[in-house]
Amino acid sequence: MSKAEFPTSRAALATPALGEPYLLTPGPLTTSLATKEAMLRDWGSWDADFNQVTAEIRQGLLAMAGVDDDSFACVPLQGSGTFAVEAALATAIPRDGKALVLMNGAYGKRAAQILDYLGRAHIDLDKGDYLPPQPEEVAELLRTNPDVTTVFLVHCETSSGILNPLKEIAEVVKAHGKSLVVDAMSSFGAVPLTVEQIPFDVMVSSANKCIEGIPGFGFVVIRRSLLEAAKGRAHSLSLDLHEQWAYMEKTGQWRFTPPTHSVVAFRKALEQHTAEGGVAGRLARYTRNRDLLVAGMRQLGFATLLEDRWLSPIITTFFSPDHPNFEFKRFYNELKARQFVIYPGKLTIAESFRIGCIGQIDEAVVAQLLRAIADSLAAMGVDRCQPAA
Amino acid sequence: MSKAEFPTSRAALATPALGEPYLLTPGPLTTSLATKEAMLRDWGSWDADFNQVTAEIRQGLLAMAGVDDDSFACVPLQGSGTFAVEAALATAIPRDGKALVLMNGAYGKRAAQILDYLGRAHIDLDKGDYLPPQPEEVAELLRTNPDVTTVFLVHCETSSGILNPLKEIAEVVKAHGKSLVVDAMSSFGAVPLTVEQIPFDVMVSSANKCIEGIPGFGFVVIRRSLLEAAKGRAHSLSLDLHEQWAYMEKTGQWRFTPPTHSVVAFRKALEQHTAEGGVAGRLARYTRNRDLLVAGMRQLGFATLLEDRWLSPIITTFFSPDHPNFEFKRFYNELKARQFVIYPGKLTIAESFRIGCIGQIDEAVVAQLLRAIADSLAAMGVDRCQPAA
Repeated sequence: MSKAEFPTSRAALATPALGEPYLLTPGPLTTSLATKEAMLRDWGSWDADFNQVTAEIRQGLLAMAGVDDDSFACVPLQGSGTFAVEAALATAIPRDGKALVLMNGAYGKRAAQILDYLGRAHIDLDKGDYLPPQPEEVAELLRTNPDVTTVFLVHCETSSGILNPLKEIAEVVKAHGKSLVVDAMSSFGAVPLTVEQIPFDVMVSSANKCIEGIPGFGFVVIRRSLLEAAKGRAHSLSLDLHEQWAYMEKTGQWRFTPPTHSVVAFRKALEQHTAEGGVAGRLARYTRNRDLLVAGMRQLGFATLLEDRWLSPIITTFFSPDHPNFEFKRFYNELKARQFVIYPGKLTIAESFRIGCIGQIDEAVVAQLLRAIADSLAAMGVDRCQPAA
Repeated sequence: MSKAEFPTSRAALATPALGEPYLLTPGPLTTSLATKEAMLRDWGSWDADFNQVTAEIRQGLLAMAGVDDDSFACVPLQGSGTFAVEAALATAIPRDGKALVLMNGAYGKRAAQILDYLGRAHIDLDKGDYLPPQPEEVAELLRTNPDVTTVFLVHCETSSGILNPLKEIAEVVKAHGKSLVVDAMSSFGAVPLTVEQIPFDVMVSSANKCIEGIPGFGFVVIRRSLLEAAKGRAHSLSLDLHEQWAYMEKTGQWRFTPPTHSVVAFRKALEQHTAEGGVAGRLARYTRNRDLLVAGMRQLGFATLLEDRWLSPIITTFFSPDHPNFEFKRFYNELKARQFVIYPGKLTIAESFRIGCIGQIDEAVVAQLLRAIADSLAAMGVDRCQPAA
């Protein structure tokens, strides 16, 4: 548990205020000062200047998804990412349709719960805490359940940190002529997800994930034909994606009060995303963060839940050490006192915790984190880190 | 149209950045720099520090509504105010209940539209563009429709700017043993609305109105007995107010990602609300703004839609002048060039526009506005302002 391995230089990227911890979570995350400073003015939500901001972010997101606005639309929606997922499911699945929900964690389960609220029929493939749904399993389920209209998959399931085999599953779904709804909440902007590579019909994400914006809204990139077919289908006025889209197309405005400051901050975040080299640039940085994190943690004696091939560059689950002095709450507080906020685990099988690699952090910050973890373990009297599992 | 009447001192309260216009709208509005600066750091939505902010604002809002947390609960909800209204209606009205919707503008109409989405029975009292619903009319409707369970009223209907006779209607509703849902979106925090004075069961408002916060969430102050009876009633996972409340009570956290920056800014806005003398202090400033605005506009030849007794201290509707050179779009742009954003009218009976009195503005700003209006009219060649109606 030597500290010598990790460089001591101050991070170039991140500039949290004095005393402000780095958020090593799946979002809200540490954003740049420039993004936050964009919130230092007020915007009239009816004014042309603000409509221009909305138009720019909608265009920017379509471009990032590799779609043109003849065949797809980008519809932002107030609220958390779950609001956008709910609106997307209510839009994409006909009232007499049937969904196949692929689940291996909290967000797949949540989609099934939404469908229960909506009264939509669904069958579920539940792989438990972290096993990936396999393309062959999906093919078999679609063969034996021909009435399925729509498949739902979480791209990066942050419950475990797994990056699910989206491309392979998308091809199976397409081959069966079904619609695919991708919850790309915590991957879009950092993991390539363009319609050319991955034939999706609906993709949902939110402001405060890999594009490194401020929470306040989510967005849905959706095939226009699905959107147009959904008129009158919604269960909720506020979450009626078709009406949100139709109003925005007609007026340039959001149908109800938008989170103006979050929207303007998002435009600033998109500029920085472009400046960093877009999705490729961000993926490179997050991957470096993840690689250093995993290597450093293994050096400290921690084990990851997942084999390397399933590790996302978003968030990683580590088993808690099987040491009598290790207690997550204490570990969390020790790290927070050292200016790092980590995330509790969500496994049913074993004690674990999660550390995110996204947001305005780079390898220098990860190196600081690793030193802080070593120090925290020392303070707790945890002198070896063999995992419990 | 002399300019001499209006003082020229710079506003003490408002400090918009260079080139930033004052937002004289029903919100999002001009907020203080201190409120916006509270957004210059990032918060973990799972962390105890953020839970503390959430707890403080919930307590502060209950206190402002004059209720204790034995009999009422405050439930914040992500999204615009409409999201909170929808969640409140879905919670407060049993699935086999029936609402009486009192309407005299867009927000009453919107409540009826929500009920249609929800599949809740309702009867409507539609008073048109601006006439107030009268307590006697409500009493008569409740007498002839004994199956009504719930009455919905907008306190300040910003479509016209009218302050509806809430107190009188609340007493009628209570006398009939029905529930009252008050949309106090644009009045709460500036017009006294405590349960002692006004027997309500549910009250809905949002962050970016008279408490002068940043848009991103609304909140519902609701009688606990109604909330508890609503378990399993919601039509939507995201808008399930009972679950939002139950989770918050249990964990201190928001159920799904909160708009962290908006929440923290709201705590700062609440501090300033208290420092200004609470609801009474804010009412006094907004009333001074409104009085100077109305007097100054009348001096310029404009007429208000409403008689003085119905004017809210929130927003005022003025008839557009019946002059061949007056065109609203031009007027809007002339005023915007002079750093004031006003609001279009919403009347079906006549051309009109609206000017808000809320947000970080004071009489000095209103005086600047009046000069800017005189200048704009001169630039447009509008030399007299007799109203069209």
